[in-house]
Amino acid sequence: MPPTTAVSASSSFTLLRVPSSSSTKLKPTTTYIQIPNRFFPKHPTFKMTTTTIRAAVSIEKETPETERPPTFLRESDDKESSSSSASSVRARFEKMIRDAQDSVCQAIEKTDGGGKFKEDVWSRPGGGGGISRVLQDGAIWEKAGVNVSVVYGVMPPEAYRAAKAAASDEKPGPIPFFAAGISSVLHPKNPFAPTLHFNYRYFETDAPKDTPGAPRQWWFGGGTDLTPAYIFEEDVKHFHSHRGERRGLGGLFFDDLNDYDQEMLLSFATECANSVIPAYIPIIEKRKDTPFTDQHKAWQQLRRGRYVEFNLVYDRGTTFGLKTGGRIESILVSLPLTARWEYDHVSFLEHSGEYNPKEGSEEWKLLDACINPKEWI
Amino acid sequence: MPPTTAVSASSSFTLLRVPSSSSTKLKPTTTYIQIPNRFFPKHPTFKMTTTTIRAAVSIEKETPETERPPTFLRESDDKESSSSSASSVRARFEKMIRDAQDSVCQAIEKTDGGGKFKEDVWSRPGGGGGISRVLQDGAIWEKAGVNVSVVYGVMPPEAYRAAKAAASDEKPGPIPFFAAGISSVLHPKNPFAPTLHFNYRYFETDAPKDTPGAPRQWWFGGGTDLTPAYIFEEDVKHFHSHRGERRGLGGLFFDDLNDYDQEMLLSFATECANSVIPAYIPIIEKRKDTPFTDQHKAWQQLRRGRYVEFNLVYDRGTTFGLKTGGRIESILVSLPLTARWEYDHVSFLEHSGEYNPKEGSEEWKLLDACINPKEWI
Repeated sequence: MPPTTAVSASSSFTLLRVPSSSSTKLKPTTTYIQIPNRFFPKHPTFKMTTTTIRAAVSIEKETPETERPPTFLRESDDKESSSSSASSVRARFEKMIRDAQDSVCQAIEKTDGGGKFKEDVWSRPGGGGGISRVLQDGAIWEKAGVNVSVVYGVMPPEAYRAAKAAASDEKPGPIPFFAAGISSVLHPKNPFAPTLHFNYRYFETDAPKDTPGAPRQWWFGGGTDLTPAYIFEEDVKHFHSHRGERRGLGGLFFDDLNDYDQEMLLSFATECANSVIPAYIPIIEKRKDTPFTDQHKAWQQLRRGRYVEFNLVYDRGTTFGLKTGGRIESILVSLPLTARWEYDHVSFLEHSGEYNPKEGSEEWKLLDACINPKEWI
Repeated sequence: MPPTTAVSASSSFTLLRVPSSSSTKLKPTTTYIQIPNRFFPKHPTFKMTTTTIRAAVSIEKETPETERPPTFLRESDDKESSSSSASSVRARFEKMIRDAQDSVCQAIEKTDGGGKFKEDVWSRPGGGGGISRVLQDGAIWEKAGVNVSVVYGVMPPEAYRAAKAAASDEKPGPIPFFAAGISSVLHPKNPFAPTLHFNYRYFETDAPKDTPGAPRQWWFGGGTDLTPAYIFEEDVKHFHSHRGERRGLGGLFFDDLNDYDQEMLLSFATECANSVIPAYIPIIEKRKDTPFTDQHKAWQQLRRGRYVEFNLVYDRGTTFGLKTGGRIESILVSLPLTARWEYDHVSFLEHSGEYNPKEGSEEWKLLDACINPKEWI
């Protein structure tokens, strides 16, 4: 029986087409994903930029693997790296994220004391692949996912152009890209223990063939951020004090970093990835057994619902993955095991003249910190 | 205390800006929503079409009202309609959806026998507004939302152009639009009772000022679809047999309808909206008390998770609303009260050599019908 995919849409999505034949997980087929026109009704007399993005992106269907390969890089990348004195940045970044995945998963399993990660290894025929690890319904974590992936893809031509070509009439072709990253979301059970998300990634594009002189591009991105349902100021301070650069309830974020030496940036990304465990585990140790009521749990579930909204609607990594035909189960590991949406839970209660949650309550403090960013250290 | 909004993002969304001061629900302020660049990292040397859409759309903040006004139309629309022999299509469509909201809510309350709809009325200073009604934790429905809204907005210029202007270098300005619609999602508690969604809408745009000769546009759209967690073929047949045009597990969908007489299309939309109750309520009456196990409930919760994914990632109405600064609580009424995500729940189990759910099981039949569309009547 085929796994469900985004293209097996209910009939409410007229822009998505269902593949004519069903595919099983063991018989990989090339799935072609169309990006729906998200913003406005298609209209015959309008030419819409969002429409032209449709159908430009496709990635081969992933194949399950029984073993972890030494590398997910294409052979040509391997050769490139062995001929030079140092390994390529691609190869070294892949090694870094796979090492980080191992050490984070070990630390989580050790702390949890009960749950074990389930591992799925997958690859794509033309190169690339990944390792997805999920610990579900553990002693401490409701759901903990830690994924690495290496992707060779093609960016839709409409989505970007080398600046110099923008004004001309020539249509740029699709541009091949390489992306490798580690991505993780850790959702604990206890409402007082915060959710953690981190993601570190490296991108390269080929030079556009039809735009002479436009360069090959590369950049680093990533970050680590804490999403509590309740705020303990000492926890947030502890988390942020791991790097002077960290600010806000969230943590550290950077993107499009390419204006420094590539070696320096690789070290920076490595240091960030290695800071995750010392920043997070002490907070979990402190909060994992805090007693809580049904009301505390309900608030956590509402905040989990909010997490789902941000993740599916706005998160760059999630939407990039879904729109480019990535492995859906790996991408959605970031969602919590359970969540809840109550209409207008945060509201002004006319009968009492008060706000819900009550001003000054613990729930209110969390909202206030989300709305009005603070300096924590 | 201010309600949370999409712009009060966690720090993981570098493209979203938090307003400098907090706003309360009773002190309406103009909120400016930036559309994040959803597809690719911003890069200084790339000019990206998706980036240019950002910051182009804003709608005034809504104001709560204590009473339902006779109309949400602007006065100029009212005058226009009273000077002509028949009411304007805008005015008649608004009346139709408000009547449909009343009759659907009455039927739901009567069937539920316990829950009552909570109503929120809101308006915007420059015209437009809506009525949101939510029944939560009733006897039969976990969450039932029925909204009408009337919106005067401005479409981002990059999102569409009159076809004749597309090739030229002139930049079209933002185009004002009018949209009115009824939208509803009804999530029952019993896993054997299906979720229903319906939505009927009418759009008009002004003629673009900077493209001489380009016309004012109008179109109708809408549909009704059934999302069961378990399939009862007789229920699906009953649902579909209400109109010869209905096909697929989903139901009926149309969009961009403007190539018929406007009166005829208004009648068609009205008839569709009035068919919702006779198509749905008999199914609920039949299934609302069917005994179920924890396993049935768990499967429903996983399918609810899938519903959330489709809704937040792909649903045109939801994403249009969120991206144009619509009233978030009204838009997200469509989400279920509770949902669940298990990693790779639908999968091949290597230890047993079987698929989960088991081929031929009731759960498998639902997936099969979602993946391989059927003719039901």
